[in-house]
This record gives sequence, structure tokens and C-alpha cells, in this order.
Amino acid sequence: MTKAAERRQQLRNALISAAERTIETDGLSGLRARALAFQVGCAVGAIYNVVTDLDDLIIAVNSRTLAALERDLAAAERVSKAAEKASPVDRLVRLGTAYLAFATAHRVRWRALFEHRLPLGKCLPEQFLEDQRRLFRYVEEPLGELQPLLSEERRALVARSLFSAVHGVVMLGLEEKLQTVPSEILREQVSFIVTMAGRGMLAQTGDSVQSSQS
Amino acid sequence: MTKAAERRQQLRNALISAAERTIETDGLSGLRARALAFQVGCAVGAIYNVVTDLDDLIIAVNSRTLAALERDLAAAERVSKAAEKASPVDRLVRLGTAYLAFATAHRVRWRALFEHRLPLGKCLPEQFLEDQRRLFRYVEEPLGELQPLLSEERRALVARSLFSAVHGVVMLGLEEKLQTVPSEILREQVSFIVTMAGRGMLAQTGDSVQSSQS
Repeated sequence: MTKAAERRQQLRNALISAAERTIETDGLSGLRARALAFQVGCAVGAIYNVVTDLDDLIIAVNSRTLAALERDLAAAERVSKAAEKASPVDRLVRLGTAYLAFATAHRVRWRALFEHRLPLGKCLPEQFLEDQRRLFRYVEEPLGELQPLLSEERRALVARSLFSAVHGVVMLGLEEKLQTVPSEILREQVSFIVTMAGRGMLAQTGDSVQSSQS
Repeated sequence: MTKAAERRQQLRNALISAAERTIETDGLSGLRARALAFQVGCAVGAIYNVVTDLDDLIIAVNSRTLAALERDLAAAERVSKAAEKASPVDRLVRLGTAYLAFATAHRVRWRALFEHRLPLGKCLPEQFLEDQRRLFRYVEEPLGELQPLLSEERRALVARSLFSAVHGVVMLGLEEKLQTVPSEILREQVSFIVTMAGRGMLAQTGDSVQSSQS
């Protein structure tokens, strides 16, 4: 890397870190180019030498958030694998509660993952989509054990459904939209939904998978 | 009612309807006192003779949205009851897909139900909370059939968990956060989650309900 390219990379990383701190405390709406430039000690215009726009920065921060979430999911899987005879349902429950714990601990950053909307016509970069897909694989693996006959495509869809269900419980619980939900109850709700869905899938393992999902 | 009280009531209703139209098209962020006053033909100050603030108006609009949703859930229940031998799981699936259909048809108004945040220290009026609780009863009834041994408190919690799970699928699907979800797939996801959770609950009817939810 040339000296200039190196400096650009350093500035880019500094901007991502500054944006990360801002999002962590103030959320997406707190992000301003001027304040970021001040934090990293560059001119406002210099920002646009290393990122296309603030959306780029937000995507980079969200990538870091996904990476942090992945570390927690990987840790949950290690606990499952160290446990004697953790069933696929146990593993899914542990992943669900790890997700809840992550969202609780990093509420503002976690919310930014879902609040960020790209302007029309702009797409998420392939790398970011791949980061997302990698997270789903943590759910897909125990699902594959639970229902070995599921096609890969079907398993991906079920993983997304299950994730969305858990996300709904976590989101409404943490937003306290319906009423204040104590964290113990929330944990129980996540565990309940995953356990019941898992058992329901176990109960149908004998049948044709297709017929009961129509 | 005196003539004056009647006029106040009329102005209040006109304002709620104007706010409803605005929220339907532009969402919560489009709501402005000045524009509302213009629409109903009153002075801006007159608004505050009949509502405390814009939050009051939003709550009134959200109440109407809940009432419209309730009509759709009631219709879904009538279809279930007219069907021969609709199982509790069938009923829950029909309620879930009715919820999805409502959210799809009234996306902006539906989103306003969840986006509206009251300023700190302000609480939702008891009537609104009662409107919410009434909706949950549609879920609680088939749940009670599915698991007759559930305590009332427990059943309310399970109903909220199940609703949150369906809401998560609908919300992430309609927001297209993870990727574009065709409506048929979304319907299938809702049906899948509810069916699996319902079957999981059926499978445990024999056991102690308590033990498997910890």
C-alpha cells in the first residue's frame, strides 16, 4: 500500500470508529459529518475522499455490530457444544437468548441495524449481505439437525422465520411498546417461542415437511 | 350535551379524521398542527381547546387503527367458526394471516401504532390500553382451547409472545430489511411460525406446562 492509500485507510477507520461511538450513544439521528470531522480532526470535505456518504459509514458501523453479534452467537454455540447432549432445540434457544442479551446490552447500536434505510436506488454492498447470511448459518445448522429433510432453500427460509419471530419478541419487549417487560420474562418469552417452534418442527419430522407448511 | 360541547366534539372528530388521513399517507412525521388547522378550517390555537397536544390526536388515530384491526380479526374468527372443525391452531393461523393482511393493506397507519413514542412521563390512556387488551383476547381464546391448563396470567403472556413473533415476521418482511419478501412467502412464514408454535404447545399438553417454559 502506498503512503497515501495507507493514510486514507487510517482516516476511514478513524471515521468508522467515531461514527460507531456516536451511534452507540445517540443513535443514527445523531450522526453529522461536521461533528465526525471534528472528532477525527479532518476537514468536512476530507470525509468524502474516503467514504461516498454517511450511509457508507453507517453500513461500516453496522458491519462491526454484526461482527460483534456473531462473536456472541459463536460463544453461545461453544457453550452448547461443550454441554452434554445439547439438543438442536437447546442450541436454538441458546442462540435466541444470546440475541436477546446482545440487543439488551447494545440497544442503540442494535436498533441502528434495523433503522437504517438506504436512499432509493442504493443497495447494500455484497460484503454486508454476506455478513448477514453468515449469521443465519448459526440458526440453519441446528435446524438442519432438527429437520434433516429440509432443502437448503427451505432451511434458509425457516431460519429467517425463526429469527424474525425472536426479533419480534425482543424488539417489542425492549421497546416496551405493549407494556414494560422485565428481562426475566423477556428471556422466558424468547425461550418459549423457540422451544415451541422447535418442538412443533420435531413433531412433524415424520410427516412430509412440505404439506404442513402450506 | 350543550351546543358548545357539541361543537367541541365535532371539532375534535374533524381533527382526528384529518390526522388520520395525514398519518395514512405521510406517516407520523407528516403531522403538523398548522396543516391540521387548515384542513378542518379552524385557528391553530383552537386545536388545543379540544386536544391536549398532537400526541393525544395520534393516540385517537391509533385507537381507530386498533378498531379497524379488531374488525378484521373478528372477521377471521367468524370464518374459523363457520368452517367445520377449525382447530385452535387453524384459528391462530387465520388470525396471524389476518394481521399480516391488515399490516400490508394499511402499512403506514399500522407502522404508526409502533412508531409513536410518548414523551417521558406521559402514559397511554386507560381506554387505549383496554383496546389493546381486547385485541389480545382474540389470541387468548384459541390458546385457552389449545392448553386448557394454562393460568389466565400465563395465557396472556403466551398470547403476547405469539403476537410478538408474528409481528416480527410481518415487520421484517414488510420493511424488507433482510431482503425482499414476496407476499406469498410472507404468508407462509406467518403460517409456519404459528403452526409450529401451536403444534409445539399441543405436544406438551400432556406434560407440566410450567416445566417446559423455563
